[in-house]
Amino acid sequence: MDDHKTIDELCINTIRTLSVDAVQKANSGHPGMPMGAAPMAYALWTKFLKFNPEDPSWANRDRFILSAGHGSMLLYSLLYLTGYDLSIDDLKNFRQLDSKTAGHPEYHLCPGVETTTGPLGQGFANGVGFAVAQKYLSARYNRPGFDIFDYNIYAICSDGDLMEGISSEAASVAGHLKLGNLIYLYDDNHISIEGNTEIAFTEDVKMRFEGFGWQVIEVKDGNDIEEISGALLSALNEKEKPSIIKIRTYIAYGSPNKVNTAGAHGSPLGAEEVRLTKINLGFDPEKFFYVPDEAKKHFEAAGKAGAKKESVWKKLFEDYKTAHPELAGEYENLMKGIFPESLNKAFPVFEPKDGQIATRSASGKTINAIAPLLPVMIGGSADLEPSTDTFMKGFESFQAGNYSGRNLHFGVREHSMGAILNGITLTFPMIAYGATFLIFSEYMRAPIRLAAIMGIRPVYVFTHDSIALGEDGTTHQPVEQLISLRSIPNLTVIRPADANETSQAWRVALQIKSGPVALILTRQKLPVLDQSKYASAVNLEKGAYILKDCEKKPEIILIASGSEVHTAISAQEELKKRKINSRVVSMPSWELFEKQDKDYKEKVLPAKVRKRISIEAGSTLGWHKYISDEGIAIGIDEFGKSAPAEELMKEYGFTVDNAVEAALKLLK
Amino acid sequence: MDDHKTIDELCINTIRTLSVDAVQKANSGHPGMPMGAAPMAYALWTKFLKFNPEDPSWANRDRFILSAGHGSMLLYSLLYLTGYDLSIDDLKNFRQLDSKTAGHPEYHLCPGVETTTGPLGQGFANGVGFAVAQKYLSARYNRPGFDIFDYNIYAICSDGDLMEGISSEAASVAGHLKLGNLIYLYDDNHISIEGNTEIAFTEDVKMRFEGFGWQVIEVKDGNDIEEISGALLSALNEKEKPSIIKIRTYIAYGSPNKVNTAGAHGSPLGAEEVRLTKINLGFDPEKFFYVPDEAKKHFEAAGKAGAKKESVWKKLFEDYKTAHPELAGEYENLMKGIFPESLNKAFPVFEPKDGQIATRSASGKTINAIAPLLPVMIGGSADLEPSTDTFMKGFESFQAGNYSGRNLHFGVREHSMGAILNGITLTFPMIAYGATFLIFSEYMRAPIRLAAIMGIRPVYVFTHDSIALGEDGTTHQPVEQLISLRSIPNLTVIRPADANETSQAWRVALQIKSGPVALILTRQKLPVLDQSKYASAVNLEKGAYILKDCEKKPEIILIASGSEVHTAISAQEELKKRKINSRVVSMPSWELFEKQDKDYKEKVLPAKVRKRISIEAGSTLGWHKYISDEGIAIGIDEFGKSAPAEELMKEYGFTVDNAVEAALKLLK
Repeated sequence: MDDHKTIDELCINTIRTLSVDAVQKANSGHPGMPMGAAPMAYALWTKFLKFNPEDPSWANRDRFILSAGHGSMLLYSLLYLTGYDLSIDDLKNFRQLDSKTAGHPEYHLCPGVETTTGPLGQGFANGVGFAVAQKYLSARYNRPGFDIFDYNIYAICSDGDLMEGISSEAASVAGHLKLGNLIYLYDDNHISIEGNTEIAFTEDVKMRFEGFGWQVIEVKDGNDIEEISGALLSALNEKEKPSIIKIRTYIAYGSPNKVNTAGAHGSPLGAEEVRLTKINLGFDPEKFFYVPDEAKKHFEAAGKAGAKKESVWKKLFEDYKTAHPELAGEYENLMKGIFPESLNKAFPVFEPKDGQIATRSASGKTINAIAPLLPVMIGGSADLEPSTDTFMKGFESFQAGNYSGRNLHFGVREHSMGAILNGITLTFPMIAYGATFLIFSEYMRAPIRLAAIMGIRPVYVFTHDSIALGEDGTTHQPVEQLISLRSIPNLTVIRPADANETSQAWRVALQIKSGPVALILTRQKLPVLDQSKYASAVNLEKGAYILKDCEKKPEIILIASGSEVHTAISAQEELKKRKINSRVVSMPSWELFEKQDKDYKEKVLPAKVRKRISIEAGSTLGWHKYISDEGIAIGIDEFGKSAPAEELMKEYGFTVDNAVEAALKLLK
Repeated sequence: MDDHKTIDELCINTIRTLSVDAVQKANSGHPGMPMGAAPMAYALWTKFLKFNPEDPSWANRDRFILSAGHGSMLLYSLLYLTGYDLSIDDLKNFRQLDSKTAGHPEYHLCPGVETTTGPLGQGFANGVGFAVAQKYLSARYNRPGFDIFDYNIYAICSDGDLMEGISSEAASVAGHLKLGNLIYLYDDNHISIEGNTEIAFTEDVKMRFEGFGWQVIEVKDGNDIEEISGALLSALNEKEKPSIIKIRTYIAYGSPNKVNTAGAHGSPLGAEEVRLTKINLGFDPEKFFYVPDEAKKHFEAAGKAGAKKESVWKKLFEDYKTAHPELAGEYENLMKGIFPESLNKAFPVFEPKDGQIATRSASGKTINAIAPLLPVMIGGSADLEPSTDTFMKGFESFQAGNYSGRNLHFGVREHSMGAILNGITLTFPMIAYGATFLIFSEYMRAPIRLAAIMGIRPVYVFTHDSIALGEDGTTHQPVEQLISLRSIPNLTVIRPADANETSQAWRVALQIKSGPVALILTRQKLPVLDQSKYASAVNLEKGAYILKDCEKKPEIILIASGSEVHTAISAQEELKKRKINSRVVSMPSWELFEKQDKDYKEKVLPAKVRKRISIEAGSTLGWHKYISDEGIAIGIDEFGKSAPAEELMKEYGFTVDNAVEAALKLLK
């Protein structure tokens, strides 16, 4: 067994040397973290974690999150060693173009990666989402004798994760909800990129987490497998409180000259230090990416033990199907992405005679219409539910002691809401939505982007979507948020014009399965467009459509989204009185429109009609593309003010008069 | 004295009734918070706070922050009652167009408002910045017998503030730095918008803050002025730890039917409840905006006491000028915005022969060149200083026990970094910068926007500005960040093309005083442009300029920013070989270019030359405006990948070949 005293040591040092070699070969990466955290990862993966490398999507697997995503080689080493679909060549291709082994672990690239991490704190908060989903699924589907879902959520997190505010938000939520299925290992190595954590991070982590309602366990020696295992057992025995195990480690442990230095954080050790490290760890310095057979076998045995556990679980699930055919059938259908047929008819249709209605309210009615048909849809708001209209009536709140509740209360914590939604929606077949005012999407940019990268589908309900929210004023009035959300690749932004477009927007949001969807909704009431007079709201799915055309060829096209569609319609009527032929295009979603074919786009926005006006109560940035060089963009490129909505819309030029004037100017 | 037992009670109830009346008249706002927090605010403002309503910018005033900005009527009431330039009519115009009394307190609108608040957690973190600035100013300017700066920073914060992650970040920083000058009153009213805080906020706040190194004092009765005053005294006596006083209050205290209900959080009480409240508080229900003379006099006395304190301070400062003329002179010049003359010559000039240099490194050299001349410039990074190159060499770190240090260590806490920078730069004449990777600007969108709203000038050093950061991969590679920053009104974004443009960008950043500036810098090395061959980098101040023209009229214009300017230059050379006349425009800043006059814009981008290509390693959104309908935007509208930089730039089309090909396509 080479020079090693125990198989544990051999395995741990195999992780260390693999990590060191891969970072060195890539000449880029973070070697120190995997070297220091190898023992805790080894203990967890070989003695506790329930996983089957042959079936990374096994529903009852434990989830493992490397929140300290920069230590990606730790995870890749484990995945390779335990037998996931990852080869030694994949490790050799660390950080190379189109490899599975990206600089930070990426969910959509690498099997066994449960969530994309790297931006610190995100994985920590994703875990809370995973834990919420586990609790919900077990509450809905477990039955006496059938613990279909009894898995736990583990993570390794770093100083950096704990410094980020999002981890405090998520920890407070987890403690409040008594998520005892959450077990975090804190790689307490006292080193961050700028040096010793003494320079910026001297808080009492234990006290802080106990304040958040967590069990905090301390492990003094991060190389002591027994101590770590004991701590993990204590964590597993605590069913009410989430646990964090604070493990004193040394960054770059094993490197004679770089151990415990910031230099080993984000840079390769260097060829000579790699050599010395291998000698120090009892490995042959001339061998690279070397995996002792005993180590490989030992890791694979853990994987195979997991495969056996899955077999047992599958048998249990077969029995469950017999005992609880309805529940099992519901679950299996949802896993296949099959929704009840009645869902299509459930999306409400609104009539003008129902009176004016804000799109946030129309969204609330839609949520409530579809909720009974989607038992795995849960959602809530960052303490704005009465304003965002996102409560599923007739369903309870998700709380400690009532995990079958479907209404989530995130508290005033938008950032962790975003990341928790990611954790929930990474748990199939869960569907989740989160709501706040559009302006506060700013607090949750990072998790929105990560959802877009991962291609998962939380739905964001962003209300109070323009200066027309009125008196709350500048700080609360979105201006640049529409364009800045539209700029995120793979995020679909939809700003419906009325209640029916809102209902349709929800329908589209549930159809899109490969990326997040943001619904942008008004605070203020809007008329319901008469679908016998205007085009059907079903057209919303195309992103933009001719809402109302003129009889002859249009001289001018008015393009608008959301509340401003009504301004465009009134302007069209005014122009008609002046014998000017204009077309109104409702354009709720740039992203959906861009997905249409050329012919359709040309039909809606013919290249020859270059006199165009966009009307949208947001930044004009980006509109130029649709209005052409000859167009006018009516928007707002400065901050708003505090005043009643109608006054503001007038003040900033969102009036029929202004639109008509712009049209006349263009046609001159 | 009406129906009141004490002047205290009369004064407190005057705040309550003013707040209730203003919210009712506006038919919009948050009455509950001012009613519950009136006693603590009264105690603080009349017994402790050092302020002079006649001189809201007195340098040694205590700072008061209403972090719970939705309770704005509390602050407006205090400002009016104590004698600031705010009339009873201003209160009557609460939340009306162009009034001083916006929905949330706005720094640039209302005298006495120290910082714009509303988005929760921001004021809390601003306070830490104010406290850092106070500590720095006192370390630099105070001398034995001359405590020029001995003020404290007070805030009232809410459950919502404490739920937001930014408050944990900022609290950890404050505890670490031992900011004993920080005294926060926590309005612990147990009510948030969704209901009782029990539904989402059950953490042990005391333990959490003690974990962060704070003194936590509890006040059981939020109406007991003596108890509150005692707590404030204890807080003032604690010189090392920041203090938070947890005060049990009742939202909408005084309202017989709405006290302690979520309904009083964000909605007017209603006319009848206003009437009942006034009766209950011993006020005449028929009087509106009624201020008893005794109350007004009592409040004004507090203001006048402050005016006296300022007189004493002014005398002290006069003596200080005699005793320490150099220090006093330095300070006075900086307060006038006068920098040393030598500053203009200090901005480094780089030569091509110095070799290739990353713009982040050129920024580091610039910072170090100007730092000795700007004694009130402090700055640092969110634990990325070795990568962002932002350390002022020869200066120490700002730490507890060494408040004259100028290098800040924010830790991995971008969000609070942004808000702390706001607090520092709101303290004149402080200059502050903060650095992180461009991608992590996403974590600090809210404070950037607030700096832009307030028109204050932190400088952001955002490095690793494109996919060319390489191996760190998708999660770390900015794509949409440039456009999403550009979309923020009043933020100037500058992406320099080489070392000299970087030096100039810093010059411009220091000149701009009415809004934040973001410097967007490369990780990778770039050639230094030969200023004898190309236009001078001084032109950067115009936002865009002709870097290199052709001999004849240009057939095509290549517009680029940052690292892609070099691609444009090479493409120009290639095109020249093919006898194609092209112009290269370096466009480091859209915002600066938009400020130029029509003639200049026409000179750089003549309307007649419509064949244009933009090259920028970021989203193409928004470029359409500059390249016209006939142009081609070379950019990246999808997420990046993990790979070496050169490979990525090729993969995504940022090559000379691709630019030339685009040009040929346009000219066909």
